Amino acid sequence: MLDKTLRMNYLFDFYQSLLTPKQRKYMSLYYLDDFSLGEIAEEFEVSRQAVYDNIKRTEAMLEEYEEKLSLLVRFEERQQILNHLRTAIQSNAAPEEIIEHIQSLEKLD
Amino acid sequence: MLDKTLRMNYLFDFYQSLLTPKQRKYMSLYYLDDFSLGEIAEEFEVSRQAVYDNIKRTEAMLEEYEEKLSLLVRFEERQQILNHLRTAIQSNAAPEEIIEHIQSLEKLD
Repeated sequence: MLDKTLRMNYLFDFYQSLLTPKQRKYMSLYYLDDFSLGEIAEEFEVSRQAVYDNIKRTEAMLEEYEEKLSLLVRFEERQQILNHLRTAIQSNAAPEEIIEHIQSLEKLD
Repeated sequence: MLDKTLRMNYLFDFYQSLLTPKQRKYMSLYYLDDFSLGEIAEEFEVSRQAVYDNIKRTEAMLEEYEEKLSLLVRFEERQQILNHLRTAIQSNAAPEEIIEHIQSLEKLD
């Protein structure tokens, strides 16, 4: 399992288009720009608790989308096969082995 | 652009986890099992119009998800590069050319 911040960065990257503009803004400031909850609260003239609640809800939504669509899991699986494929090509592996990696990629979709 | 039925089959495949059980059931009967609206209406003891409205709404939702997440577009782009990659390997292309295809795949993610 990835570190929480890194994981949220990835999930935000994959699913941000499904969030509201406000959710996107808070998440982006908190996770990408490293603002504190207090700083975001000040910026938007709301309570720190309101920002905290919104971010927690958004995190739960992102996890729910990942549970349903598995975009992060599938991304990681593809990256792993691409690494194997790259290594196979750089070490002059037999074409059959290389084709097998390509078939694994096709099956993932 | 794909034929409407084929496109809906793909979109349903990618996004069905985001639909309600009823939406999934109607779409599956209509698009995968080729039931008519009347047959679905009879099966669920609702009006033909109710089935029609539900399916139209679901189709619009699937298109909206595709607009936001582009899973079908990205699937098609990956398949195209995988075809190029397969051809390159089968025709003994230079490793540099093959690595370029792999980089294109990595960039898509």
